[in-house]
Amino acid sequence: MQNYPAGPDSMAAKMHSMVRDVQQQITSAVESVDEDARFRKDEWEREAGGGGLTMVLENGRVFEKAGVNTSAVYGIMPEQAARMLNVRSAPFFATGVSLVIHARSPFVPTVHANFRYFVLGEDLDDPEDYWFGGGADLTPVYPFVADARHFHRTWKAVCDEHSVADYDAFKSRCDEYFYLPHRNETRGIGGIFYDYLKGDTEALFAFSKAAATRFVDSYVPIVERRTGHRFDAENVLFQEIRRGRYAEFNLLFDRGTRFGIQTGGRTESILMSMPPRARWTYDHRPEAGSPEADALQFFRPFDWLGDSADIKSPVYERTGDTGVLG
Amino acid sequence: MQNYPAGPDSMAAKMHSMVRDVQQQITSAVESVDEDARFRKDEWEREAGGGGLTMVLENGRVFEKAGVNTSAVYGIMPEQAARMLNVRSAPFFATGVSLVIHARSPFVPTVHANFRYFVLGEDLDDPEDYWFGGGADLTPVYPFVADARHFHRTWKAVCDEHSVADYDAFKSRCDEYFYLPHRNETRGIGGIFYDYLKGDTEALFAFSKAAATRFVDSYVPIVERRTGHRFDAENVLFQEIRRGRYAEFNLLFDRGTRFGIQTGGRTESILMSMPPRARWTYDHRPEAGSPEADALQFFRPFDWLGDSADIKSPVYERTGDTGVLG
Repeated sequence: MQNYPAGPDSMAAKMHSMVRDVQQQITSAVESVDEDARFRKDEWEREAGGGGLTMVLENGRVFEKAGVNTSAVYGIMPEQAARMLNVRSAPFFATGVSLVIHARSPFVPTVHANFRYFVLGEDLDDPEDYWFGGGADLTPVYPFVADARHFHRTWKAVCDEHSVADYDAFKSRCDEYFYLPHRNETRGIGGIFYDYLKGDTEALFAFSKAAATRFVDSYVPIVERRTGHRFDAENVLFQEIRRGRYAEFNLLFDRGTRFGIQTGGRTESILMSMPPRARWTYDHRPEAGSPEADALQFFRPFDWLGDSADIKSPVYERTGDTGVLG
Repeated sequence: MQNYPAGPDSMAAKMHSMVRDVQQQITSAVESVDEDARFRKDEWEREAGGGGLTMVLENGRVFEKAGVNTSAVYGIMPEQAARMLNVRSAPFFATGVSLVIHARSPFVPTVHANFRYFVLGEDLDDPEDYWFGGGADLTPVYPFVADARHFHRTWKAVCDEHSVADYDAFKSRCDEYFYLPHRNETRGIGGIFYDYLKGDTEALFAFSKAAATRFVDSYVPIVERRTGHRFDAENVLFQEIRRGRYAEFNLLFDRGTRFGIQTGGRTESILMSMPPRARWTYDHRPEAGSPEADALQFFRPFDWLGDSADIKSPVYERTGDTGVLG
């Protein structure tokens, strides 16, 4: 990248290097599980400064579409983008990793995560403003209580190891953020979400790195346990309907997607998060007592690590031949 | 509907009655062409005043999903809605018909149309503000020059018969409105779009009625001519990718959709416009010289009724066994 404005010891460079390492770690893990498909690499440059590496795997054995994107972009914040972020138009540097993984089986959840760092001001080492943001959230089609617990337990453990992180607060923000008001449901079973974290930058970097590095542990065991679950055309239909909701969230509400599209970001890297297939059926309502009705009870804020989870294990979890995690 | 605030001679009541008649005319025509599926009727009430009739046909022989919705809603304009419309929060009345028809065949275009009337102020007969809006636009997957010409010719004829209408202006506004900046392409081959029309209300009503009544003529002949065209799995794949763009437009940019979702409208009636199926493939680029590459050249503003259309008839139009419209 031309004129990379960050010295090797700067937080900007450290964060960029970390997200590139994590991109390598995650794409290797995904390829290992899939055993079949390989990531395609697209290196791209941003005209006004910086660029990124978009890695996409499609039509795999286990994964239908997985996108893992890293970028480091810099220059002068465009007026429109500055207005949307509520900052002044000044020199900026932003780097991060962002990923969405859609599996083939309706019994394997979709996952999304991102870890990012933003700096505003002339001097990257003594910036006018900066923040860390990120998180990870799980969107099952047919959710399993055990999977939700595994996912949340992993993120709680990471947060508990870092005093700058607060699982309860990040978990609540995740439930609030990934919410579809017009459906009165959450996108999935949540996870953690944080933004505008400032303070001890070394401690925040350590947390970001630990979280990003733990992503594989939060997700891959769930994939391995569920990918053998038998499914039929009816399950795929429900998967497509639920993926329609995923598309609704991304295009109607997701700040990153809307910000990227409206400020002229690289369309294919932004929309790599979209589901491979989606379906809209008028006023779809699962029959009472069906596995699909069981699934819908999950899409609300819920204390997955609480003592007495009052959610009923759905029929496919109670009768499944694939066992239960942890 | 309780407390319907408009007397039988008011423009509000005339417009509502007209759109109900047109809903009947259009749904009958669609059922006649389909020969198989029938519209399901959902009458709904709006808590704060008014309601509507949503009619949806799914999984037909010719049509995969057709939604035709009429509504007449009134009450006090909610603050958020007033801000979005840039009017004061005052008593309002709004009525209209809105439709989207997605056919099964990739060679039959999707069509959208709406015709509406809005009044603001205490007295419906002497309102503080009011306007007519509407239009119709065609979104083919594999576009035919002859179909684009038929569609535009129909709308030009309606406009030419009414001095309050201006085909050239409405056609340009349609190209501007149905545009995806992040794709640098129009949604389809355009049509007409108008909004905030004021002046001679009787003349504007006569135009609205003529346009709404002519919708069937603008679309059904295209369906009849193209529905016999053979198609294969590759054509369906391209149809799903193009429908992904349709979903992007509706959720990212369409003012009606976003206004409806953000002001708590009836979700299923608003999102009945969504395609039945959609697909997102990373960085899809048709091979040069393929029918899909031929198709993409259509998605830009174009003078369909000009003397020397400089667009090349695509290969499926030149070699098609289905003839060419007028």
